[in-house]
Amino acid sequence: MNYYAGIDLGGSSAKIGVIDENGKIIAKKKTDIDRMRDFHLIADKISDSLKSLLVDTAKEIKAIGIGTPGFINKQTGMHEGGSANLPMLPGNNIVGEFKDKFRLPVYADNDATCATAGEHIFGAGRNFTDFILLTLGTGIGGGLVLDGKLYTGKIGFAGEIGHMSLDPDGPLCNCGNRGCFEQYSSGPAMVKSYREKLKKRNVAPPDDLAENNARLVLEKAAQGDSLAMDVVFTAAGKLAQAIGSLINILNIEACLIGGGISRAGDLLLKPVRSMLPDFVWPPLIKNFVLQIASLQNDAGIIGAAAIAKISLQS
Amino acid sequence: MNYYAGIDLGGSSAKIGVIDENGKIIAKKKTDIDRMRDFHLIADKISDSLKSLLVDTAKEIKAIGIGTPGFINKQTGMHEGGSANLPMLPGNNIVGEFKDKFRLPVYADNDATCATAGEHIFGAGRNFTDFILLTLGTGIGGGLVLDGKLYTGKIGFAGEIGHMSLDPDGPLCNCGNRGCFEQYSSGPAMVKSYREKLKKRNVAPPDDLAENNARLVLEKAAQGDSLAMDVVFTAAGKLAQAIGSLINILNIEACLIGGGISRAGDLLLKPVRSMLPDFVWPPLIKNFVLQIASLQNDAGIIGAAAIAKISLQS
Repeated sequence: MNYYAGIDLGGSSAKIGVIDENGKIIAKKKTDIDRMRDFHLIADKISDSLKSLLVDTAKEIKAIGIGTPGFINKQTGMHEGGSANLPMLPGNNIVGEFKDKFRLPVYADNDATCATAGEHIFGAGRNFTDFILLTLGTGIGGGLVLDGKLYTGKIGFAGEIGHMSLDPDGPLCNCGNRGCFEQYSSGPAMVKSYREKLKKRNVAPPDDLAENNARLVLEKAAQGDSLAMDVVFTAAGKLAQAIGSLINILNIEACLIGGGISRAGDLLLKPVRSMLPDFVWPPLIKNFVLQIASLQNDAGIIGAAAIAKISLQS
Repeated sequence: MNYYAGIDLGGSSAKIGVIDENGKIIAKKKTDIDRMRDFHLIADKISDSLKSLLVDTAKEIKAIGIGTPGFINKQTGMHEGGSANLPMLPGNNIVGEFKDKFRLPVYADNDATCATAGEHIFGAGRNFTDFILLTLGTGIGGGLVLDGKLYTGKIGFAGEIGHMSLDPDGPLCNCGNRGCFEQYSSGPAMVKSYREKLKKRNVAPPDDLAENNARLVLEKAAQGDSLAMDVVFTAAGKLAQAIGSLINILNIEACLIGGGISRAGDLLLKPVRSMLPDFVWPPLIKNFVLQIASLQNDAGIIGAAAIAKISLQS
């Protein structure tokens, strides 16, 4: 049996795991990296955690995979920005740093690309040769498997599906574009829209309606709250528009939905499925599958390890 | 030297050519198929033309490639619709028909996919591993080369880029969607918009402003006609929105523009280039190339032969 390490770098912590070749987590650990300003210190802390995991499990690993927010140049291994929650990453060679520490093959990629790799070889993606994964959370990330292989683009930046412009006169996005997909169907977008509707009606928002608590809006919608349902339907309509265009462009057979918002399940997917034909050339929608991604809580670690396994074999 | 046949099935005629392995046309012929209602009769006529070409040139071919409008299922060889100008095609096995007549490998694909294959191995696409071709004409077609290979999707229907929805409240398309890309930037869309603007001003349209004469609108724009310039800028803005989303999704390095409207050259491409940053995540636009496709008049024949060459080698 071969083993791989997966490191999932998030906004406040890093999750580190040792995974076997079937995608099973042998051991895992979480390391707090909040407020650390120097990438080298973070890398040291993560390395120590991984080393102790390897001692505990007595496993030798073949390679290390790392998932981070933002852009990693696959030609150079450099982080090139797009990680607002981890502002110390850009300008660092993520791959080089860990290679030096472990003398092993190291691969790094965007977290949504890692999640796609995980679904591809260990999850629901095993059933499909051509699919996309959309991760719906604070933003909208994405990844592509085409012709049975992970596709990452010329320098590894493919999958910025959250920044498809669905309406050139739509709301301004923090990327500078207008009407980006994630301005409609991400968690904060849904919360913002719900808050605006309540305010217009002079209703105080629930105390626990924080920017990242889209789950509350989804719960309200499930309970039949008309305003919350309207928010969910609007988000679903934009999901249908984006996924419809992706089907027209790529003739994919499936779209998997991951990320925190995917926990809404059919509450979100059912309206998307009914609106999808509005945006797809009829022959392309035949047999199309829209479903929830299968790796949930540990998608980050498993996906990072999947990148390592796939890269080592190719 | 190896040789291939390329057959380009158009609305009123079929163009047939013998092409060498470097993409050079050795001989070509045009066969009128107007008003023929039976695909078998058309196939007979084309076969006779190809056979006489092969006798004339004294060349043996390795394989035959066929490009047609609409959808060809790559798993079955069947034409599955989407060819309004050639209504006799759907329901026929395009591949099987010619295989029976020639006892040679036969491959068939959508005409825009063929054009993409042509650019990929014989044209401007040779410089890129990840690019799209957009053919701007009566409709908008497209094709993709990803990771250095032609990508056609699960059953061969990829590249319906003209039916990306750029505005869910936009004009109704004949595919049933709203706000499809080709409702803004195709030839007929430009002509329609120019006509509407003239009518609003009680100006009679030029006599030669037929539905398919977008070139006239482009000429007027080049001469400084403000209304025509407005039409061209609107089409360019939608081109920028569509191409921008494609860059975000696929991290492609180039987009080639083909089809009749591409003859407008920089008149169209210059505004697209300046509007593109409105729709792209900044790190993804670095080094991006937007240029006119290099195979012009014979793109159809050469592209069909390219499909044959690529398919035989894979």
